[in-house]
Amino acid sequence: MSLALSLGRRGQGNCWPNPAVGCVIVRDGRIVGRGWTQPGGRPHAEPQALQQAGDLARGATVYVSLEPCSHTGKTPPCAQALINAGVARVVAAIEDSDPRVSGHGFAMLRDAGIPVTTGVCSDVAAWDHAGFFLKTEQGRPFVTLKLASSFDGRIATAAGESKWITGSEARRAVHAMRARHDAVMVGGGTARADDPSLTVRDLGVARQPVRVVISRHLDLPLMGQLARSARDIPVWICHGAGADAERLRAWEGLGAVLLPCAADGLQLDAGDVLQQLGQAGLTRVFCEGGSALAASLLAQDLVDELIGFTAGLGIGGDGLSSIGSLGLDTLAEAPRFDLIDVRPVGADIQHRWTRSLR
Amino acid sequence: MSLALSLGRRGQGNCWPNPAVGCVIVRDGRIVGRGWTQPGGRPHAEPQALQQAGDLARGATVYVSLEPCSHTGKTPPCAQALINAGVARVVAAIEDSDPRVSGHGFAMLRDAGIPVTTGVCSDVAAWDHAGFFLKTEQGRPFVTLKLASSFDGRIATAAGESKWITGSEARRAVHAMRARHDAVMVGGGTARADDPSLTVRDLGVARQPVRVVISRHLDLPLMGQLARSARDIPVWICHGAGADAERLRAWEGLGAVLLPCAADGLQLDAGDVLQQLGQAGLTRVFCEGGSALAASLLAQDLVDELIGFTAGLGIGGDGLSSIGSLGLDTLAEAPRFDLIDVRPVGADIQHRWTRSLR
Repeated sequence: MSLALSLGRRGQGNCWPNPAVGCVIVRDGRIVGRGWTQPGGRPHAEPQALQQAGDLARGATVYVSLEPCSHTGKTPPCAQALINAGVARVVAAIEDSDPRVSGHGFAMLRDAGIPVTTGVCSDVAAWDHAGFFLKTEQGRPFVTLKLASSFDGRIATAAGESKWITGSEARRAVHAMRARHDAVMVGGGTARADDPSLTVRDLGVARQPVRVVISRHLDLPLMGQLARSARDIPVWICHGAGADAERLRAWEGLGAVLLPCAADGLQLDAGDVLQQLGQAGLTRVFCEGGSALAASLLAQDLVDELIGFTAGLGIGGDGLSSIGSLGLDTLAEAPRFDLIDVRPVGADIQHRWTRSLR
Repeated sequence: MSLALSLGRRGQGNCWPNPAVGCVIVRDGRIVGRGWTQPGGRPHAEPQALQQAGDLARGATVYVSLEPCSHTGKTPPCAQALINAGVARVVAAIEDSDPRVSGHGFAMLRDAGIPVTTGVCSDVAAWDHAGFFLKTEQGRPFVTLKLASSFDGRIATAAGESKWITGSEARRAVHAMRARHDAVMVGGGTARADDPSLTVRDLGVARQPVRVVISRHLDLPLMGQLARSARDIPVWICHGAGADAERLRAWEGLGAVLLPCAADGLQLDAGDVLQQLGQAGLTRVFCEGGSALAASLLAQDLVDELIGFTAGLGIGGDGLSSIGSLGLDTLAEAPRFDLIDVRPVGADIQHRWTRSLR
């Protein structure tokens, strides 16, 4: 099952809106088939593993990181494919939360006389599929918030210099993280200040993540890196109702996808932004700031995983904060996270946290 | 030598103004004597180890973490004691930088026909004795700056709530760190806001560190924890020339030691503060903030070791910064530190850095 989960993670960032599933077929103690959801979401993991196994699938045990699908969508149901192949037993990590599948996949298998075991490594599977489950259950993608700052939590000097606070190894780690998400998201302020390309570089990825910019007034540079590359790599812009019509046309002309979102006070409502992104199919979003967007997400408890990079330099209280104002009076109101792991990355440290259940 | 260094560190925080030295005597492959500088700085490590070894010291090899002293101070010279005991060989980690000793201790031994090896584990010894060496060479103690903050570098909410950002394990680690320093130092703002006792608790220490408060105007609460306990555990207050005479008398009456320091603009000059503390004998100072004092020390490049505790909560940009304004325009001007280590401590992470040589 660990191998199936590991294979499944290969699809993360590549196969949205579908879940990234892994499948391993074992016959007489030997692995005879391996598969994972392919770029774009098809083929699914099970048919790939079955194809590899061929006749050896008959009487074999199938390990799969998510309940096999039971409905005919763009592909025939995987549960039926497993039945047709004559497998002896199916071991699944976790039930699907998609109402079209949930429990039905297992039922199809059992009705065909195939014993099913489920709940094996379910905690790992729940984490791996968290984006797909969140989209199905709450309509929004999983959100990873990355904050790369000085050891006093600053992302730029008072004069605005931000390149580079962290070192090249940390920046390379960020590219690998981008590749594991469906989209990279920044606020309009960051897009204006840094003119980022937000692509995955030097890792040979097959599919670049969508670049999402949150800009209520759509006041983004039409000559910047995002504008220039929008035809080749998707750029989606979440904007407010009052955005200038000429700018809307200009960005459409550049090839961007425009997503109108509800406002909440002076900013776009982070909850609605994520609903729009979920509706558009995203399951995993990697947010790289800036401070205002980070604050909006944290204030609405919309951050599922927090990744900090801390560099060995001090910028001081007059520098730019990694998180904007949260308006907290007491510590009891503060958004809280539990440590997953911490390690040195080059000259910096990397720490990962997940929403606290305390 | 590792054992001698380890024994030596037992004296850290206890034996100022003397260096914390460790000594191991080995005869025929067996340890026959161990010693370390005792509380208050006497006896030194070597006579203690010699006393344990007794007659077995004759012909033995002596491992010592610092050059044996050669001058008669409050104790007779250790080099002479080693000669009198008839030891066969002395292995030292590093030469003393005190001009009264430097090289003379080794010379005395060699003149008496005892072979001396030096430079064994000298990098570790240089770090362990850094406070003593800094006091000797630059007149100031080694400074450890501790910053315990939220993951966005905040030490309190906008409303001032700061208890507790980090968890009990991190706070316990801080007490152990206090115990390894000669003094714990805070700014006046922290003393007023938190009314801390700054003692080492629950660790059964023999000697509490000096409590140092930096307060230009001496506007500190006369009914607080420091005031109430100043007779039992030393309180030293660094103040400016313009401090109110009545307050000076009041604090003297409470048993505090008053150290007048030069001012630098609106604040006391951090460099002069440390010179005064060095003159008063301190070799290792543990600074626990607040943000203004941290900024003063960093701005003058007076932080030798930086210890961060990062908690899994976000406070936001309207919270209180761990470091005050540094007035930096470019990142090139930022004070830089190299990572020593990082690890989880309870629910928080602890990261240690040392002044960068880059």
